[in-house]
Parts: sequence; C-alpha cells; structure tokens
Amino acid sequence: MPELRRDPIVGRWVIISTERARRPSDFAAPPPRRRNGSCVLCAGQESSTPDEVWALRPDGGLPNTPGWLARVVPNKFPALRIEGDLERSGEGLFDRMTGVGAHEVVIEAPVHDARIEDLPVSHVAEILRAYRERILDLGKDPRLEYVMVFKNQGEPAGASLEHTHSQLIATPIVPSMVGEELSGGLQHFRIKHRCIWCDIIRQERQGGGRVILEHEGFVALAPFAPRFPFETWILPAEHRAAYEDTPPAELEALAALLSSILRRIRNTLADPPYNFMLHSAPLRAGLLDHFHWHLEIIPILTKVAGFEWGTGVFINPTPPEEAAQHLRQADVGRSVS
Amino acid sequence: MPELRRDPIVGRWVIISTERARRPSDFAAPPPRRRNGSCVLCAGQESSTPDEVWALRPDGGLPNTPGWLARVVPNKFPALRIEGDLERSGEGLFDRMTGVGAHEVVIEAPVHDARIEDLPVSHVAEILRAYRERILDLGKDPRLEYVMVFKNQGEPAGASLEHTHSQLIATPIVPSMVGEELSGGLQHFRIKHRCIWCDIIRQERQGGGRVILEHEGFVALAPFAPRFPFETWILPAEHRAAYEDTPPAELEALAALLSSILRRIRNTLADPPYNFMLHSAPLRAGLLDHFHWHLEIIPILTKVAGFEWGTGVFINPTPPEEAAQHLRQADVGRSVS
Repeated sequence: MPELRRDPIVGRWVIISTERARRPSDFAAPPPRRRNGSCVLCAGQESSTPDEVWALRPDGGLPNTPGWLARVVPNKFPALRIEGDLERSGEGLFDRMTGVGAHEVVIEAPVHDARIEDLPVSHVAEILRAYRERILDLGKDPRLEYVMVFKNQGEPAGASLEHTHSQLIATPIVPSMVGEELSGGLQHFRIKHRCIWCDIIRQERQGGGRVILEHEGFVALAPFAPRFPFETWILPAEHRAAYEDTPPAELEALAALLSSILRRIRNTLADPPYNFMLHSAPLRAGLLDHFHWHLEIIPILTKVAGFEWGTGVFINPTPPEEAAQHLRQADVGRSVS
Repeated sequence: MPELRRDPIVGRWVIISTERARRPSDFAAPPPRRRNGSCVLCAGQESSTPDEVWALRPDGGLPNTPGWLARVVPNKFPALRIEGDLERSGEGLFDRMTGVGAHEVVIEAPVHDARIEDLPVSHVAEILRAYRERILDLGKDPRLEYVMVFKNQGEPAGASLEHTHSQLIATPIVPSMVGEELSGGLQHFRIKHRCIWCDIIRQERQGGGRVILEHEGFVALAPFAPRFPFETWILPAEHRAAYEDTPPAELEALAALLSSILRRIRNTLADPPYNFMLHSAPLRAGLLDHFHWHLEIIPILTKVAGFEWGTGVFINPTPPEEAAQHLRQADVGRSVS
C-alpha cells in the first residue's frame, strides 16, 4: 500500500509509492520504449489495461473493445490506490496516511503516434470534457479532496509511455502548491474583495505585453514571474473557481486555444517536451470567490538545478514579454510529423 | 541587468536572468562540452575567469596563476550582479527588484577530470572552509540577505561545465524555501521551546532505521518524507543555526562524512548525477534557536513531472528506510574512474 508522509518542518506531503518501488539497480536504465504493436495504450490492446471508466465511442460498441477515440482507464501502477480505508497515524514528530486516492490515464487517441497538438479541436474538446466528467465522478468519493489533471509530453517531461495520454491523480489532501494559491487568493480577497486572477487578467489586458492570445472567453498569457521560459497560463476570462463547473459547450473554445498554444510552442521551440497542469478548486469547495481555475503549460527547456531545489527561486533566462511576443508571432500551422 | 520578480499570488520570487538570455533557437542544442584543454576552469586558464576572490595555494604563488588546489571566482555569466543599487519598484499587482546579488564558482580542483568524491578528505575540508569564508565575506554586504551554496554534479543535475565545481549565489531576499523552513521551525519552537531539527535527530537516533551514519558531531540521515529517492541530509548533531559559525577545524569531520556519503551514493546507484544544497540561516541572523543548518543531497534518479510541478507533492518510489539501509551497507571505497 502506498503511503502519504508529511515533512514535519515545512508540512510538505510526499507519496511513498510502493506500487512503483524501485531497487537501486532499477534506476540505472530508462524504461524500455514501447513501440506501436507492443504498446498497452494502443487500440486493440484494451485487455492489457484495467477496465475503462470513460470512453468516447461515437459509433457505439462495447466497453474495452476497439472503436474508441479516447478512453480513460485506471493506472495499472497507481501512485495512490482507490481501495482501502483512509487511515491517519502519527509517530512522534511524523505523520502519515494510507495512500488512498485514484490514478487514471486519459488515452487521448487510439493511434500510437498521435499528438494532442494534431488532433481536431472537437476531439481535444472531448478530452477536456473527459477531465471534467472524471473530476465530477471522483468528487463523489468523500475520502478525496483534490484532483490534479496533468500531462507529461516526452520522456524528459516525465512520460514513461510514448502513446499520447494525460493523467488524473486524486489525493486525500489539498496539495501544498494549490494550498498556497488558495491562501494567497484569500489574502487578496480579504483586502480587496476581488479575485486576484481576475485582477491579473484586467491588468494584463491594459498592457505589459504578456497577453498571448484571447479566444471566446479564455485568455492565454505569459505570467509576470514565470518559473520557466515560455511558461504559459490559460484562464477563463470570467471568474470561475472550479474547472468542472465549466459548461461542456464552452470547452470547445478552450480546446481551440490550448491547441493553438501547444502548436505555437512546438513550432517556436523545436518541439520541446512539456507538462501541463490544471489548477482547479478543491473538490466540493463550492463557488469560491477567491480562487480561479487555470491551466499552466511549461515547456522543458532548462534544467532544474541545485539553486532551484535549495531556494525555490527559479532562474529564467527568457523574460515573459519576449516569450509572449514569440508565441504571438508563431506559426500555428499543424505539422504531420 | 537581471531582475527579481515576485508572483503576486503565492509570493514566489524568480530571477529573470538577462545575462543568460536565450532566444528560442538557443534551447534546441545543449551547451558544448568543454574538454580538457579548452576548459576555462582548468589550471593554466586563470586568465579566462574573472579575478579570484579566494584560493588555496599551499606553496604560495600569485593570484590568478597556476599553483592552486581550489579557487573561487565570480561567475562570468552571473544570475545576479554585484554591481548596482538595489532598487524596488511596483507596477499594479506586480513587484520587482533589480537583480543585485553575487554568483561565484568554487573550482574544487585544478585537474579537469577530478571528482569531489575522490579528493582527499583534507582537500574537501578546504572546499567547505572556502564556503564558510565566502559566506562571511558576502555577509558584510548589507544588500544581501542570503547565500545559497550548491553543487550540480552531471549534466542532468544542471551542470553546464564538466570541471568539478560548486557555486554560491547571494540574494537580496530570503528565498521562499528557506523562509518556509524558518517559519516551520519557529512555529515548533514557539510551542515546544526546542529546535525541530534537534528533535528530529533525537527521534531518529531512537530508531526508525533512517540514520545512515554518524561521524564526530555530524549525522547523515534519510529524511522521513523525502522528495527524492536516496535523498540524504547531513546535520550537525548539536544545535547550530549558521553554517559559517562552524569552527573551521570541525569542517574536517563534515568533509569525511560528506565524502563517505557521496561515495556510498555513487557506488550504490551507478554514479548518478546529483545536487547538494546548503541550508544555512539568513546572513547576520544571529544565533537562532529555531533554525539548524543542514546539507541536503539529492541524487537525480527520477523525472520531475506534471504532478509534482502542479501539486508540490513528490512521488518517491523508494522508502527512506530502504535507502538508508542500502547506503549503510554500501561500499565506501574510492574509485579512480
């Protein structure tokens, strides 16, 4: 059983992942690349994954058979497990919790070499709707407090499978980074009675050169103090705390903007590995005035080194104003590579 | 001029490093490897670096000439610059500061292929004394609030030069990660009137299997909630807040313990890249009861991916009790590779 442990000094939780346990010699070699044919996420390999919990099957068909365009399955090697009771225990200074949670894989397309950037916008919209439906479903489990949706594109970004996919991990705690955003947002709201992300959008629209693109109710911008070069945030222009409160029809516009930004990043930066992370409100938090959901996209272009790990201060060689300008001017054409 | 910028939501500072500015095409290729002969840190290349600010010359000799065993020079491409006034300015929600600070390179040995693990303990002790002397000297500059000493070993750990070296970056702010440790430590002290790191050492000595090694006043342990597999902390067994308050003679014991741990990590894990980071008290903070300096060592064995960047929660596949056991049993022999 995996375990959550809390650092007693800074309160940071970590997951000790016994399902993914590795001996010293396991670290030496990277995991083998699974090519078309041996890939467990490919169409035709449905029996190699746990039973699907969601699928897009425009022409119908039975679960766990071919004919799907996108599919969500439990992770075979989950970081946290859905089974078991959430048990909390202490040991002197130290606190732990059983590693209860959920870990799901969103298989974004049936074809091995597909890339989310090249899928039709309507298909990307369905993936974004899958995120929403899975968050709503996982939110029914009272043990779970948060769902993080994220994507690792490319091995340097942490992808262990080539086949295009994203993931959801549901945790029995509100993660520290989201907790910091919540308390920062609350502090601002208590003083100003305004959402800080709404304020940021307002100020950025008045100038500064960091807005990259706006599209039907969504804004893409380079944040003022980005940790990473070409870091990009996408936010709904109007206030909304929880991603899952977005009406499904509006996710078409988000899909178009996300797709455009990912293609601009690919074309500007020679197809870099990247991560994206969806920061939404905690599950069942209601309509928060002080939190505003957003999607963070970080191309992996620089190495995180000792200074960053020691200080939490990131050294970024590209001013966001320059990054925004490059991305505004970028070629948005689709590639077929 | 580099710039410090503050994220208005979570208060995180970043460095926008114009000295290291990179255009989109610069990210595609890794920096060229400089071999013996063309390396600017090698003996004989002293005129390629800025003038040294410290050197170990057992047989005497002029500054910036060969004959040194270790040498500290300003970084030619500093993340923060020593010149200029510290100016703070605001722009609506956003805060910035001129990028005043210091960035120095500790060249640990004159020979290109040396590794700190293979140097005599007395030589490592001199490197640790150089850190101390540079912190004391930088502490005289009232613009500076903190010095982070760190080492990036290997390209995946962020080293852009092969020649064995470590670095110091002095900042005009207390970095957020140190700030969190300070406030966590203070919270504990206010309730218990004890240092939390002293309490951790006390509890770990009573069992739990996470102590790796003790040596003449220093303890090496695997922390209870490590972010990374085989993460190791070294602390003085007795309370001490500031690294630079360590009597120079005691650094011989620290050198022996650090050297042993680094060799155990190399021999257990097939010579992984690693970082180490020295967490000391802020400059001129005096004798703090609630902070305890420590050195954090993190082998780079796993990829940091979207989940970690989004949540701040790290997934660690190796329980620290297992890591500690492997490191206790490890071969500590020196290699000549």
